[in-house]
Amino acid sequence: MTNHPLLKKFQSLVGQANVFAQPADLLTYSYDAAVLEPVLPALALRPTTVEALGRVVALCNQEGLPLTVRGSGTNLSGGTIPAAGGVVVLTNALGRILEINSADMYARVEPGVITAKFAAAVAAQKLFYPPDPGSQAVSTLGGNVAENAGGLRGLKYGVTRDYVMGLSYFDVEGGLVKTGAKTVKCVTGYNLAGLMVGSEGTLGVISEITLKLVPPPQAGRAMMAIFDDVQKASQTVAAIIAAHIVPATLEFLDNFTIRTVEDYSHAGLPTEAAALLLIEVDGHPAQVAEEAARVQDICRQQGATRLEVAQDAAQRDRIWEARRTALSALAKLKPTTVLEDDTVPRSQIPAMIAALGGIAQAYDLTIGTFGHAGDGNLHPTICCDRRDHHEWRRVEEAVDAIFKKALELGGTLSGEHGIGLAKSRYLEAETSKATVAWSRRLKSALDPKGILNPGKIIGG
Amino acid sequence: MTNHPLLKKFQSLVGQANVFAQPADLLTYSYDAAVLEPVLPALALRPTTVEALGRVVALCNQEGLPLTVRGSGTNLSGGTIPAAGGVVVLTNALGRILEINSADMYARVEPGVITAKFAAAVAAQKLFYPPDPGSQAVSTLGGNVAENAGGLRGLKYGVTRDYVMGLSYFDVEGGLVKTGAKTVKCVTGYNLAGLMVGSEGTLGVISEITLKLVPPPQAGRAMMAIFDDVQKASQTVAAIIAAHIVPATLEFLDNFTIRTVEDYSHAGLPTEAAALLLIEVDGHPAQVAEEAARVQDICRQQGATRLEVAQDAAQRDRIWEARRTALSALAKLKPTTVLEDDTVPRSQIPAMIAALGGIAQAYDLTIGTFGHAGDGNLHPTICCDRRDHHEWRRVEEAVDAIFKKALELGGTLSGEHGIGLAKSRYLEAETSKATVAWSRRLKSALDPKGILNPGKIIGG
Repeated sequence: MTNHPLLKKFQSLVGQANVFAQPADLLTYSYDAAVLEPVLPALALRPTTVEALGRVVALCNQEGLPLTVRGSGTNLSGGTIPAAGGVVVLTNALGRILEINSADMYARVEPGVITAKFAAAVAAQKLFYPPDPGSQAVSTLGGNVAENAGGLRGLKYGVTRDYVMGLSYFDVEGGLVKTGAKTVKCVTGYNLAGLMVGSEGTLGVISEITLKLVPPPQAGRAMMAIFDDVQKASQTVAAIIAAHIVPATLEFLDNFTIRTVEDYSHAGLPTEAAALLLIEVDGHPAQVAEEAARVQDICRQQGATRLEVAQDAAQRDRIWEARRTALSALAKLKPTTVLEDDTVPRSQIPAMIAALGGIAQAYDLTIGTFGHAGDGNLHPTICCDRRDHHEWRRVEEAVDAIFKKALELGGTLSGEHGIGLAKSRYLEAETSKATVAWSRRLKSALDPKGILNPGKIIGG
Repeated sequence: MTNHPLLKKFQSLVGQANVFAQPADLLTYSYDAAVLEPVLPALALRPTTVEALGRVVALCNQEGLPLTVRGSGTNLSGGTIPAAGGVVVLTNALGRILEINSADMYARVEPGVITAKFAAAVAAQKLFYPPDPGSQAVSTLGGNVAENAGGLRGLKYGVTRDYVMGLSYFDVEGGLVKTGAKTVKCVTGYNLAGLMVGSEGTLGVISEITLKLVPPPQAGRAMMAIFDDVQKASQTVAAIIAAHIVPATLEFLDNFTIRTVEDYSHAGLPTEAAALLLIEVDGHPAQVAEEAARVQDICRQQGATRLEVAQDAAQRDRIWEARRTALSALAKLKPTTVLEDDTVPRSQIPAMIAALGGIAQAYDLTIGTFGHAGDGNLHPTICCDRRDHHEWRRVEEAVDAIFKKALELGGTLSGEHGIGLAKSRYLEAETSKATVAWSRRLKSALDPKGILNPGKIIGG
């Protein structure tokens, strides 16, 4: 593609060294973490200033060239798979933290800032940025905003959406839209930042993000509750929430996931357990002590066979890091890893976990289930081989059955991974015909040529 | 207007008793709490089911008839002033609390539920709905969502937006759009609930709201800090936030407001004080004790002349109720009350309060300032007489000067009162030309005939 007709124009906009057109480059940007066919773009561009970013957007629109913005490509629903022959715009040269304002507790960043680096910079100023998606070590804040990324702390601290105070972004013609403020309260104009969060790059191209920061919790206590019965573990989740305790994290792992993670990480997880809950409460030390005691009581009442409280930060971190490897560990087992993201009201977690067991059996599949049970968000993970056509058909049917069950239980088909390419065909079933029509009308008005990340969310 | 050509059709949709066309009715719905000219609608309708509500929307669109939804009309920016000859749709017969789910900590309501009644029903189940706009005793939840209402607790607990988990609403053709979920995490489709919050009835007509509930704080402590110098009070606000303490409420009243409120409410406020801060910290009892002590230390360091800690709930409530009367008390002084809503980063509160003093002097006006200083949201209130043309011109110039200053200090022109009719001409100054254009494009696509609350936010 080194002879793309617009090559020279793009080179003049972003510099020759920042235009990539070699087959190896294009292959790199043809896929993300979703199990979907890769699609080759025609070019990849790496603007180094937001001004250049805006000019790239305008040129793509003028030429009718599909444009997909890519942070670190950790997306799990195909949101960063480009359109064939389109342009991939990389944000990794737009990685400046513009301001961390301690007195007013907000920060301003460019879209390419790595989530974990940002969280660390904020922590160095004795502040706290809570959203912690599984991929935080490599994911970008721009990607987090585009996907409304969640994470382990969603239960108590909310998701990315809850921290976006303001945004600047380029409309499809390259005009700069500004929305929100540096203040907690702002109702000046439509809540466009709200609309942009989770819009998967289909409505505009983010150039700057203003994020809310909060004081960090003074203390925390991490526990592991071990169960010999998966239903007892899931009922414990429901019981903790029903008691109106809101832990910072409340994670579930089934036996299959525990064994796989332990093989991979050697963190000392009890491989004989039918299920584990990893629980952390945080806040004022006195509150932490009380909540930890109440959580332990509930775990015992619900039949936990053992409770381990982390004795120090190192022990806590070892367990938590092990949990964070769950996807990588499961992904090593088989050629194909289908990671689902269904989310149900917390009281329905026992029913959902029971249903997943039934689905695994009915479709003769290996499903490891783990996830953020405290906010109802489970990640049933199907380890399979896509090349086995018979098995793959069963996988597809199982995924349908999982979605159907989640909706039946009053839940949603995507808690935090987005719709992307992978799930747009399910959108109407969860919402309504009018919802899809309204969304499409909105999209067409804001992107008449349909160049902004085509095919995502609302289909092609 | 009893001979409106569509009278019979509307009567068949909502019942004869629920169509109002007498001059006295129409006058009632011609204004709200903003200082703007009243505008007479042609009809007012009171649907008693959401199905009828949807059919009313469809008929209005079919006939090209402007439609303004009205909760309790407490709006302060003209958001509920109808278009001339249009239809006002009342939500006061859609006031059912459909569900309060204690185990999963959410509630579902119709739009006409009164905010304070809902908060009380939630409290009866030992849960907490934090948003507490000044008008909560009469305002509706539908109105709160349409305006993204704030309140005294915005600082710690956020605003209405932070509690909307899901919405159902009618698009302009009467199709039912569903967005969000009963779960904390949901990224299924665009965040249409985010867009609808604060959209002032211009994009769709809300039929059902799913609200997040949280566990109530275990304890609270309310304090009054008294200052002999307005700058010391404002610096105290900045110092508390800079110390990363987040009180539940942190309210500021200047001497003029204190005297006016005391005259009206006889709550025992110190009328000699130059300024007051009303502060409440809440949470675990141990945290409350520590934060209260730290807040008191900061108040003393910053030069508070006296500190009073509420000894019991009755004393606390008396002071808080007095604060809530501020607008009513100020409104009794002069025929016209212009209540502004500028919001600045908290560190800029001293500069903003100093500027307000200068503006009052420069334009020879009486400005009482009070507000939610802890989240940077001030309500400078100009007591005047609109019939005095010379004075009114100075008022208009002062309002311009206030907005200019708020923007200069990195703030916003509306923290929680909305843009409505009153402020749409300032929108571009705070955002950008592209922002207004994008917003208009979005509005036209979703409401091609422009019947949904015309003229609000983005102008006519």
